[in-house]
Amino acid sequence: MRTPTPEDKFSFGLWTVGWTGTDPFGTSTRPALDPWQYADGLAELGAWGITFHDNDVYPFDASPELKASRLNQLRDAASKAGLTIEMVTTNTFSHPCFKDGGLTANDRSARRFGLRKVLDAVDTAAECGASTFVMWGGREGAEYDSSKDLYAALARYKEGLDTVAGYIKSQGYDLKIGLEPKPNEPRGDIFLPSIGHALGLIADLDHGDIVGLNPEVGHEQMANLNYTHGLAQALFSDKLFHIDLNGQKGLKYDQDLVFGHGDLISAFFTVDLLVNGFPFSPNAPRYDGPVHFDYKPSRTEGMQGIWDSAKANMEMYLMLAEKARAFRADPAVDALLRANAVDQLALPTIAEGESLADFRAADADFDADAAGAREYRYVELYQAALRHLIG
Amino acid sequence: MRTPTPEDKFSFGLWTVGWTGTDPFGTSTRPALDPWQYADGLAELGAWGITFHDNDVYPFDASPELKASRLNQLRDAASKAGLTIEMVTTNTFSHPCFKDGGLTANDRSARRFGLRKVLDAVDTAAECGASTFVMWGGREGAEYDSSKDLYAALARYKEGLDTVAGYIKSQGYDLKIGLEPKPNEPRGDIFLPSIGHALGLIADLDHGDIVGLNPEVGHEQMANLNYTHGLAQALFSDKLFHIDLNGQKGLKYDQDLVFGHGDLISAFFTVDLLVNGFPFSPNAPRYDGPVHFDYKPSRTEGMQGIWDSAKANMEMYLMLAEKARAFRADPAVDALLRANAVDQLALPTIAEGESLADFRAADADFDADAAGAREYRYVELYQAALRHLIG
Amino acid sequence: MRTPTPEDKFSFGLWTVGWTGTDPFGTSTRPALDPWQYADGLAELGAWGITFHDNDVYPFDASPELKASRLNQLRDAASKAGLTIEMVTTNTFSHPCFKDGGLTANDRSARRFGLRKVLDAVDTAAECGASTFVMWGGREGAEYDSSKDLYAALARYKEGLDTVAGYIKSQGYDLKIGLEPKPNEPRGDIFLPSIGHALGLIADLDHGDIVGLNPEVGHEQMANLNYTHGLAQALFSDKLFHIDLNGQKGLKYDQDLVFGHGDLISAFFTVDLLVNGFPFSPNAPRYDGPVHFDYKPSRTEGMQGIWDSAKANMEMYLMLAEKARAFRADPAVDALLRANAVDQLALPTIAEGESLADFRAADADFDADAAGAREYRYVELYQAALRHLIG
Amino acid sequence: MRTPTPEDKFSFGLWTVGWTGTDPFGTSTRPALDPWQYADGLAELGAWGITFHDNDVYPFDASPELKASRLNQLRDAASKAGLTIEMVTTNTFSHPCFKDGGLTANDRSARRFGLRKVLDAVDTAAECGASTFVMWGGREGAEYDSSKDLYAALARYKEGLDTVAGYIKSQGYDLKIGLEPKPNEPRGDIFLPSIGHALGLIADLDHGDIVGLNPEVGHEQMANLNYTHGLAQALFSDKLFHIDLNGQKGLKYDQDLVFGHGDLISAFFTVDLLVNGFPFSPNAPRYDGPVHFDYKPSRTEGMQGIWDSAKANMEMYLMLAEKARAFRADPAVDALLRANAVDQLALPTIAEGESLADFRAADADFDADAAGAREYRYVELYQAALRHLIG
Repeated sequence: MRTPTPEDKFSFGLWTVGWTGTDPFGTSTRPALDPWQYADGLAELGAWGITFHDNDVYPFDASPELKASRLNQLRDAASKAGLTIEMVTTNTFSHPCFKDGGLTANDRSARRFGLRKVLDAVDTAAECGASTFVMWGGREGAEYDSSKDLYAALARYKEGLDTVAGYIKSQGYDLKIGLEPKPNEPRGDIFLPSIGHALGLIADLDHGDIVGLNPEVGHEQMANLNYTHGLAQALFSDKLFHIDLNGQKGLKYDQDLVFGHGDLISAFFTVDLLVNGFPFSPNAPRYDGPVHFDYKPSRTEGMQGIWDSAKANMEMYLMLAEKARAFRADPAVDALLRANAVDQLALPTIAEGESLADFRAADADFDADAAGAREYRYVELYQAALRHLIG
Repeated sequence: MRTPTPEDKFSFGLWTVGWTGTDPFGTSTRPALDPWQYADGLAELGAWGITFHDNDVYPFDASPELKASRLNQLRDAASKAGLTIEMVTTNTFSHPCFKDGGLTANDRSARRFGLRKVLDAVDTAAECGASTFVMWGGREGAEYDSSKDLYAALARYKEGLDTVAGYIKSQGYDLKIGLEPKPNEPRGDIFLPSIGHALGLIADLDHGDIVGLNPEVGHEQMANLNYTHGLAQALFSDKLFHIDLNGQKGLKYDQDLVFGHGDLISAFFTVDLLVNGFPFSPNAPRYDGPVHFDYKPSRTEGMQGIWDSAKANMEMYLMLAEKARAFRADPAVDALLRANAVDQLALPTIAEGESLADFRAADADFDADAAGAREYRYVELYQAALRHLIG
Repeated sequence: MRTPTPEDKFSFGLWTVGWTGTDPFGTSTRPALDPWQYADGLAELGAWGITFHDNDVYPFDASPELKASRLNQLRDAASKAGLTIEMVTTNTFSHPCFKDGGLTANDRSARRFGLRKVLDAVDTAAECGASTFVMWGGREGAEYDSSKDLYAALARYKEGLDTVAGYIKSQGYDLKIGLEPKPNEPRGDIFLPSIGHALGLIADLDHGDIVGLNPEVGHEQMANLNYTHGLAQALFSDKLFHIDLNGQKGLKYDQDLVFGHGDLISAFFTVDLLVNGFPFSPNAPRYDGPVHFDYKPSRTEGMQGIWDSAKANMEMYLMLAEKARAFRADPAVDALLRANAVDQLALPTIAEGESLADFRAADADFDADAAGAREYRYVELYQAALRHLIG
Repeated sequence: MRTPTPEDKFSFGLWTVGWTGTDPFGTSTRPALDPWQYADGLAELGAWGITFHDNDVYPFDASPELKASRLNQLRDAASKAGLTIEMVTTNTFSHPCFKDGGLTANDRSARRFGLRKVLDAVDTAAECGASTFVMWGGREGAEYDSSKDLYAALARYKEGLDTVAGYIKSQGYDLKIGLEPKPNEPRGDIFLPSIGHALGLIADLDHGDIVGLNPEVGHEQMANLNYTHGLAQALFSDKLFHIDLNGQKGLKYDQDLVFGHGDLISAFFTVDLLVNGFPFSPNAPRYDGPVHFDYKPSRTEGMQGIWDSAKANMEMYLMLAEKARAFRADPAVDALLRANAVDQLALPTIAEGESLADFRAADADFDADAAGAREYRYVELYQAALRHLIG
């Protein structure tokens, strides 16, 4: 397998390699390095970019001087290592003041503070030259249906997003916002639980043109949803601004495994979509942004395991990409796709120029029983994919 | 408990009381009546409306004469029983010709037929005086990620929806479309798997103004989602056009239990939202459409069980409505809501007229630790709800 | 609702009221009190007992003196408050040395230490007069199928359990072991994921006679299982030694909500089983042990919320018990149970003295179609339960 | 990939290739052949065995003559095709008379009939030379917790199983019973929902020595459980009598996909266990029975798809077996296993001859912090597996 190169645009959150292994039932198993200390290691492995939450770099209560100095240290380290800071985000979930939400806390002073913190991080993102500003509202939600006026919560969410997007525009920042949906954890139910819900709210925004999605594999799978289908809908709405790749094994706590270490076949088709696009829709939007990993080195790992796992993410992606390209290049696959009429779906149902009256009359001789008996060989097509994947 | 009255606007699908108990592992346990034979029974129980799929009333291959005669019989029966036909929908899932989709089948002739069948049912809906036309795309989806060009699938879905909505407008029908999301079953992954995804696609439509949602309790819960939160987002986007109430016990096959027989507390808060609206958002949209039940009398029931269960749906709703009203009218609850700042969430985060600069400066004296230590008594508030529910 | 009394045998883990609100995405929102400081509060609310992990009372690295002194302080406080220490358990999950397991770590020295720590806690349990010793193997498991020899893991689990059980017997302690199954979290897959798996392993033990179950509501529900059914099977095997009541809303992270705040109807039937037993099996084993709550006051709560939520658990149980008793005492319910042949299930399928040959011949005139058409009114019976629950 | 041979012991249920595509929302998409017509096709593909439910071969109400003649036709066809009839089972779920259960119906006459039907099928199994008799109690369960006396239900289940097992012994049949657990579908909650629960009940049987497990991939995964872990526990109890391989994508309806088409990595480790056994437990029980596929050709497939999918099951198994063997033969993998102490888990925690007193004293110098800092490279080991799987 070839080594990752900057052209692959692999990027990592500092909080990923920097996770020290605390979980609800146990304390840290690894020490934390300073954030800039991860830069060299990631660059050596072939990463192209890094990303961070404000408080991955400086403490919640940092003075402006400390904040500036630590950001500078990180930017210097990234620069020396040849790494791009491609995305920045805000931590509005760890401090107890956010326990009821960052933008949707019932306590108005708390959400005013949350919104200000987000705006500060937007400035940081712009200063660092990031192209995407991610907003994960992990504390926007509730355990108890009685504890929120749900309309007001969505109104405040919209207000917050529009304020941030409007601010970005007003400053002329070259930044887009990527919303990161998640169904639950740490809240019982999180607002904007899936790609779809985020698309729905974006459509209600005043500044929705610069607001899109940063969908995470595991988060969609925690809602029992097909991640690749979600990416497709985000692309259909031209809203796939960033991605978070990782692994998850079904409906349980957020595992943040290495990409491909959860549902492998799904990961294959995700990479297929990312590298090959839609097979018969050449004019459809494509994703060409960073390939960002949002995973955690398991708690049993030590420092070597941090690098093992960071590398494994990239290796998985490259292996899957190679196989996905071969799958699509295989003439037998192409023949099966066409035999199964997959290409036909790109044809409008109603022909160009066909009137509705003509359309309704034209099908009079449709043979429903023959159509019902049509042999789709989807299993054989899937098996062909699996032969490429593991054959 | 009081008896249902037409003012309650309870309505039932003919396919609900008419389900004969076939499931993937067993044959029918009850005979099917003619559709009009259910009308009297439902009316006697206090229902106000009925709804149907085209093929609940006449067979898939009915001649125009048979179709008209059976529809007339049903309309007569409904009229005599004093029942409103409030919604009509199309069956584009039972016949084998739809095995790969109604509007998104790879086979273009199949989806042309599907779309025509939907348009025919729109005419039927208009003739019957229905106000809502529901579209559940149960076969729009896939088991195998390779079997669809996902962009093309969404493009065809959009084409189909816009064609139907455009036709409704062109005919001047007083009909709105209610999309019914579902994550899976009968397909491995269904397109538009949740309320959010439907809202997202509606925003991409040309005729989205008359397209909204018909969310079903069990379908959202099959995606591990909070139904009441979903209704709230649909209302926030002013897209809650119709509802399907039933019960589901977690992530398994689609159970279609009686409303409230699944997640009871969630059902309580759903009814609370429907009858009381959002507590501190008086100008938010309200749902005042039919209270439609989409359930199945369990396979172990006989004919008596059909009426037992139909009645149980209405009784559950009325019991929950009474309790939800008492909950909201309780001064102790109101005090707790305010002590927990639930009312505050309706206040804009940024004050009217407050500049962004002022806003960012104003919070300088925010005490994060004090905010973090704030005592929310959400558990006590929830317990207060439970005292009303079961006390 | 009446006030809890010691006769109700309500008991609480010190780690429940003592939880400070740390979760995977946030830090503590409440201070920790000393363990004995919770005793008075719980007693005032009407609790009868308390339980603890060794390290709820003294630190992991406590000297023997510190350990003794802190245990004495707790025992004194319990005694003064009139509280029974009914159960003790071991923390073999928080310290990093247990990151790969307590009894099943690949590292032999780690599992030797784990087993010793368990044995120490057994001595503590005996000193404190506890009647149950719970073993929750939260770290016994894996994220990666390759990382364990699964047979060896089960062999080590058996070795550990038999060692502990054998030690209890050898010391003449009046203690029974309650295994607490859980499907996942903090490990990706935990060994003994459900009540059934624990029953299976117990049957393979040498000292299984004093090893039974301590099933937790949320844990079974995280495996998509019916908790009450699980209790019934544990009772059927005469292995229901202790219970952990709490609430969970479906398949997600371990929520540890207040009992009844998750799946309310399921909670009702759990309490029904606990207080009423099996309706037509008078000689079946009954559970008469402590009613133990293993929940967490939500992170948004403050100190008041700790007591609110502790009280809510007991209030829920008492409300449900009252309703469950009324349900079973209702003659209409009894009539429905008999009309639905629920009582018949207690009759042996083959009559006493009936030979197999006679049995096989006797059914010759069975009318399958009549049996298939039999009207079960299970929905009406369930609705009757709901009328008692919320009517 | 090599062609399947009889030595692979691949076997198929007649109901798998014979499924005609009916599902809860649609009618058949394929015709049914006579059961014997599948034999040649399966044999040509390389299958070694077939299995069936009684009513896969003859109708529910067949006369003794019809039953005998159709069984003979099947046995002849199998014989000619060189296929072994390795397992037989009973359909106690399709006919309405079983709507409330086969062995645990409340109606005593129904469960008497169910048990008789099972005994008849045991005779058939013996006549056909089958070695395993599978019992899947798909209708043993409930939607409503009130509808069963759960103790009585388990007592009747035990009575039924003991009757069948006792009969097998009394007749001297060379048959073992394989219980097939499933958590739900077609019932809301099925008794014996997982491998563990079946192991638990078997331990309570009088004739449990000839009763073991027939675990199905998808069924365990519908309970959010790790199938390979389940197989391991069944082997640990020496109860893995038969297996049902197929594919499932998470918590939804029972999909019965081709083996490996669901969770591929899990399928890899399942095959690894089946072909390689436990890596460091050479004396542990091994499974060497038939490799039985219990899947359904998707409803979109036609007759060609039946053979495509049957073949795909075997191809997946053979591909995974080859890769699993290479994985275990790889010296780098072996080195990683040992570096991660996977081999150490096979060592008793307490040394042979070590007294408990010595054991408790011996660890005094255990360095918990060093153990906590131990570097497990489980991610690298898993990645090594994935390199073998897809590299």
